[in-house]
Amino acid sequence: MRLTPASELAQRCKKLQQYMTQEGLDAVIIAQNADLFYFSGTIQSGNLYIPAQGEPLYMVRKDHGRARRESALQEIIPFGSMRDIPARLAEYGYPTPGRIGLELDVLPVNFYERFRKTFPGAAFTDATPLIRRVRMIKSPYELEIMRAAANQQDAIFQRAKEVIREGISELELAAELECCARKLGHQGLIRMRGFNSELFYAHIFSGPDSAIPAYADTPLGGPGLNPSFGQGPGHKAISRDEAIIVDFGACADGYLSDQTRVFAINSLPARLRKGYDDMRKVQERMMAIATPGVPWGAVYGECLSLAIEMGYADSFMGAAGSQVSFIGHGVGIEIDEYPFIARGFDDMAMENGMVFAFEPKVVFPGQGAVGIENTFHLDQGVVKQLTCSSEEPVILAG
Amino acid sequence: MRLTPASELAQRCKKLQQYMTQEGLDAVIIAQNADLFYFSGTIQSGNLYIPAQGEPLYMVRKDHGRARRESALQEIIPFGSMRDIPARLAEYGYPTPGRIGLELDVLPVNFYERFRKTFPGAAFTDATPLIRRVRMIKSPYELEIMRAAANQQDAIFQRAKEVIREGISELELAAELECCARKLGHQGLIRMRGFNSELFYAHIFSGPDSAIPAYADTPLGGPGLNPSFGQGPGHKAISRDEAIIVDFGACADGYLSDQTRVFAINSLPARLRKGYDDMRKVQERMMAIATPGVPWGAVYGECLSLAIEMGYADSFMGAAGSQVSFIGHGVGIEIDEYPFIARGFDDMAMENGMVFAFEPKVVFPGQGAVGIENTFHLDQGVVKQLTCSSEEPVILAG
Repeated sequence: MRLTPASELAQRCKKLQQYMTQEGLDAVIIAQNADLFYFSGTIQSGNLYIPAQGEPLYMVRKDHGRARRESALQEIIPFGSMRDIPARLAEYGYPTPGRIGLELDVLPVNFYERFRKTFPGAAFTDATPLIRRVRMIKSPYELEIMRAAANQQDAIFQRAKEVIREGISELELAAELECCARKLGHQGLIRMRGFNSELFYAHIFSGPDSAIPAYADTPLGGPGLNPSFGQGPGHKAISRDEAIIVDFGACADGYLSDQTRVFAINSLPARLRKGYDDMRKVQERMMAIATPGVPWGAVYGECLSLAIEMGYADSFMGAAGSQVSFIGHGVGIEIDEYPFIARGFDDMAMENGMVFAFEPKVVFPGQGAVGIENTFHLDQGVVKQLTCSSEEPVILAG
Repeated sequence: MRLTPASELAQRCKKLQQYMTQEGLDAVIIAQNADLFYFSGTIQSGNLYIPAQGEPLYMVRKDHGRARRESALQEIIPFGSMRDIPARLAEYGYPTPGRIGLELDVLPVNFYERFRKTFPGAAFTDATPLIRRVRMIKSPYELEIMRAAANQQDAIFQRAKEVIREGISELELAAELECCARKLGHQGLIRMRGFNSELFYAHIFSGPDSAIPAYADTPLGGPGLNPSFGQGPGHKAISRDEAIIVDFGACADGYLSDQTRVFAINSLPARLRKGYDDMRKVQERMMAIATPGVPWGAVYGECLSLAIEMGYADSFMGAAGSQVSFIGHGVGIEIDEYPFIARGFDDMAMENGMVFAFEPKVVFPGQGAVGIENTFHLDQGVVKQLTCSSEEPVILAG
């Protein structure tokens, strides 16, 4: 089992502490699983206390022994209740913090109230923007894992070529690809940070199903199997001469990879083929302009303008009335990390070390949707692809 | 696609409004997916405003058209921002609410702050205990769906008999059963309400792996594939003469079913076999005592006492140091609903109409774990089983 090295954890902590000092925070207390994994190397339930200076203290409710085996942090102690935190901090010589950062975008209110009782004199602020800034720059260690995820992604893509046939349902196709991913070591779970942002592996749909909008913050929605979870594959049988979307989230050792490819049996209708080629041009434009220093919103704006010029004002990134205001998103332990290549993010800029998915997609209501998605790495000023499957639409014999 | 009938939604709303009146709440605003599905029949993103009297108003950000197709509620309107809510309420003649219930156990702090700005004069309380009380009593409509989930569960159990063989890894077995579940219409997603409570289908593990504790609030943990999601199946190959745990979450049309069965190749070691038989006795005791009016904590206490009498003080419901303080949990749209058959719940009583899983399990560190789990329905004073797979351990030829 791959364990996060101590040097990696130390680097991450140090960077967060720099941001904390800039923002005048005395401590950040981490509770959410994705952040726990990033800063401790495990997700045993408890609280990770990171002071502005000094060593982090991981207070673990369950399971302490496992936390010690999986985490390379030095200070890991058992604890029973949040009320015990101040006493534990005192034992370790940490002063009572006055300004505390919490993950206020994900922390439920009832937990927050417990923190407020535990630290009655403290002021609380949202630490998530700082945490996101640390997490958005991937280390060589992380990139190695993300390359493994991209390779898993390609194996799933190859499997799709074998499985897709006339008459198979979207759900059956999804089931086969999920099974393939799982056997390749996919943990199953795909983490999306946003409240209510449930996701399951993949968006696989075909023909008109791809054009069905959903509640999710994704360009395509899909019917799903029932209104309880109305997104993703439905029961529709796949036919000849329609676009089949395979948008899959691969995962290796907790790190994700996001890729979308288009398949068809017999032929891809000309209008969809043109749409697909146009989306590839949007991708090319992004690769040319997303260099360090360029605001996220500018990358978004220029690619959106190109799509509008191409005639997709009402169909780019979702059906009219259901379009989303982003084209790309950071990828790592969660599928919605920084950067947000999205409207309104004009004061945050592209940086070397970022890993992000870019997914220009276009919807033709009643007929379907097409688009492409790759996971990219901004490396020494150049946008490089991590996902590596062939980008030509796969046309299978009918 | 099965849509929740209008009469069903009306009943649910009426019951919540009764509780709201008892508690002096003017309104409950529902935002979380599981609750949205329960009270509206869909999960299109937005806010469902339920006044203490009158019709609920579903304000939908995305996708409004789909909300209208999937929800049988009368009043479904598009809206853009939380700031617009008071104006929308005024249009519908609803007075500005003074006491508002929100889902404070799941609602992130940043969302709460937006509600506080939207209703500057209001007092907010946690509506989740009321919502839980409504949801814990299942209607005949819900029971019909949950029976379908239990039947799906049995098909997965039958599939396990075909797939388990010497040398197959826990992960491969999980992948095959997940694939089977999916083809039977499982939505993939299993909802668990608690913060950080991520779950993926099933806990499948064998031999000593079953005794590995994890962070999750479950009696058994398992190794998982990596510390990012350290629970569930690992890479271990399944051997002869050890206990194989198949704890699966089935799902039909958004409703869950929870069942655990034990398999072995060639033989189940005598100590484990005895443990299994003892856990069945704990189940029998629960079935005899969990009648309407008995406190949840009393059911827990009496079953725990029996397990302790049997000599399992340090191994019942988890390995020593990692034991959980419950034996059963309500099941419905989420896997952690009311009732909690758990320590400390002495002021809540069993009621007709409840559906719950009961899962006495015992751990033998280094050797494995055994136990049984079924999903039950308390019907006219009698505890009846919904899950229906044979309860004898399945001993496969070696």
